[in-house]
Amino acid sequence: MTLADLTQRTGEWLRGAGPMQEVVISSRVRLARNLAGMPFLSRCSPQQTAELEKRLRDEILAAGPAKTMFYVDVAAAREIDRRLLVERHLISRQHAQSSHPRGVAISDNETVAIMINEEDHLRMQVIRSGLQLSQAVEEINRIDDLLEDRLDFAFHSRYGYLTACPTNVGTGIRVSVMLHLPALKLTGEIEKVFQAAHDMRVAVRGLYGEGTDAAGDFYQVSNQTTLGKSEEQIVEEFRDQVIPQIIKYELTVRQALLKNQRPVVEDKVFRAAGLLRSARLISSEETLYLLSMLRAGVNLGLIEQPDLKIINELFLLTQPAHLQKILSREMDRQARDEARAHYVRSRLGTSWPN
Amino acid sequence: MTLADLTQRTGEWLRGAGPMQEVVISSRVRLARNLAGMPFLSRCSPQQTAELEKRLRDEILAAGPAKTMFYVDVAAAREIDRRLLVERHLISRQHAQSSHPRGVAISDNETVAIMINEEDHLRMQVIRSGLQLSQAVEEINRIDDLLEDRLDFAFHSRYGYLTACPTNVGTGIRVSVMLHLPALKLTGEIEKVFQAAHDMRVAVRGLYGEGTDAAGDFYQVSNQTTLGKSEEQIVEEFRDQVIPQIIKYELTVRQALLKNQRPVVEDKVFRAAGLLRSARLISSEETLYLLSMLRAGVNLGLIEQPDLKIINELFLLTQPAHLQKILSREMDRQARDEARAHYVRSRLGTSWPN
Repeated sequence: MTLADLTQRTGEWLRGAGPMQEVVISSRVRLARNLAGMPFLSRCSPQQTAELEKRLRDEILAAGPAKTMFYVDVAAAREIDRRLLVERHLISRQHAQSSHPRGVAISDNETVAIMINEEDHLRMQVIRSGLQLSQAVEEINRIDDLLEDRLDFAFHSRYGYLTACPTNVGTGIRVSVMLHLPALKLTGEIEKVFQAAHDMRVAVRGLYGEGTDAAGDFYQVSNQTTLGKSEEQIVEEFRDQVIPQIIKYELTVRQALLKNQRPVVEDKVFRAAGLLRSARLISSEETLYLLSMLRAGVNLGLIEQPDLKIINELFLLTQPAHLQKILSREMDRQARDEARAHYVRSRLGTSWPN
Repeated sequence: MTLADLTQRTGEWLRGAGPMQEVVISSRVRLARNLAGMPFLSRCSPQQTAELEKRLRDEILAAGPAKTMFYVDVAAAREIDRRLLVERHLISRQHAQSSHPRGVAISDNETVAIMINEEDHLRMQVIRSGLQLSQAVEEINRIDDLLEDRLDFAFHSRYGYLTACPTNVGTGIRVSVMLHLPALKLTGEIEKVFQAAHDMRVAVRGLYGEGTDAAGDFYQVSNQTTLGKSEEQIVEEFRDQVIPQIIKYELTVRQALLKNQRPVVEDKVFRAAGLLRSARLISSEETLYLLSMLRAGVNLGLIEQPDLKIINELFLLTQPAHLQKILSREMDRQARDEARAHYVRSRLGTSWPN
């Protein structure tokens, strides 16, 4: 498995078949860890940074936290490949844009990704399709244990795991789910979710994390407190209280919309289907928005085609770097918009339920 | 032939097969006439107005200016029928909304319409498909002669025909063409046409005449001067200079667009086609706009279907009064928007060139 194989398929988390998949796209858990006896990255000399990258890479590959893993040297990768990894949520934007030695170890099915030299020495992530927080936590704990057998992590008896940013100190854990909330968005009820999230110390972000807008009605919801609670408490509260409430709210509003404003919702869904099939120029932002409406339509039973799997794939494959990889050429914006429109039409086919 | 038959077909002027039909929808000529020895309508007593209506109706039907004519008593007509006549350009909005005795005599193919008691005692109109100003003028002169054999028109040896509004005094003639100018609109060049029109004493108005906006890139261009020039001069200048210049300008910009921005234009055309086929709720304004893009696409050779005849029919049949007549029920706005979307889909069919 190499980077080149990535464009041939989507990761496990996009297969669109996990629990509660009509609202929950994916569940993600990540841990932040730093080596004891080494400065945080912002204080490392170039030599220390390079040393860290080499040592951690070797240890991860030797520990084999996933059966088959491959490693991408992010510093040496082409820009388009770094973007590809961001679009797949395998590395962060910050990691893509840095300039020091760094990399990421990825499991074959992309459920595990371990960034080396992001904000912390190690950022381990497990991502799974649908609502699978417990399974994701189990897996990340297994990985953490395997690595801890070989590495000495910076740990303080009172504060817990030490991290570069104080908001991660403690367990260093962040749990998050990617939610699809078209009904809450359409009705404006999403504002109440923002308010409640703030009160519950939960962060709501856009599709690509910190500093990005919610595109196509997708929202990343994650915990903010890491200090003063155990890992179990954090995950339990998030999994058993916060997320079920938001899911229930979205589902209730969907039913109310169907009951009271069916023609309005149908109109949006079928227009999205029509535009995706007819546009000759289309941006990735508009594609995301239209696919989101289409996904809502399928989940509401308003439209039968296409399969959710195709919609999920298109979310990823119409992103700029993926599109260029699939078509094996680099393009400027207008050329991409034209190629994207053509690609979407070719994937959705010409026969359409009317 | 009666009012009820009107919704079964479109008038001659919408058949979309006249000269220069890729730019010129229709040519229209109208004359304003008043009876000598009777006050203008604003000064008539109710009795005189009623008398005028009866007398003019009888004379017109007896004179038989068109082989077969039918008469609509506009004052007695239902509101939806009056709107229907406005949508077909057979009476003006003012005529529809007045409250005094009034009517309109219409030829079977709708090329001739003679309004009684609009602003003047008589407003005769000939409307033809495409660029056919000379033919329209010939026909209206024939009608004018036939009526003048029976009626004594108010005429002043120095000022010419006397009319209620001074802008019509003289020949009482107004020539106009309905132009489809999508390329000039898209590029913003239409502003130059407005400026030039102003300099040439030509008025540019929207689809339904005075006080209406240009909807769907349709513009009504008409002469403003009636005093101090002969009928022939007015028509010649308008027909041989003003209109050909605008047509040439539009065609030049269309070719430039095709050469330099083909994907952008194609995108607009195919999106319009897609939306018309997929919307579940659609206003008459949006329908007009989308049909206009579709018409442009057919004329530019970008899209083969549908036939221009169908597009022209839909322009008319999707208007509120027509839609309700066709479907034989009166509806509120949302019900109309839903019914309109359904009707458009049924007319455009489900197989679409891709």
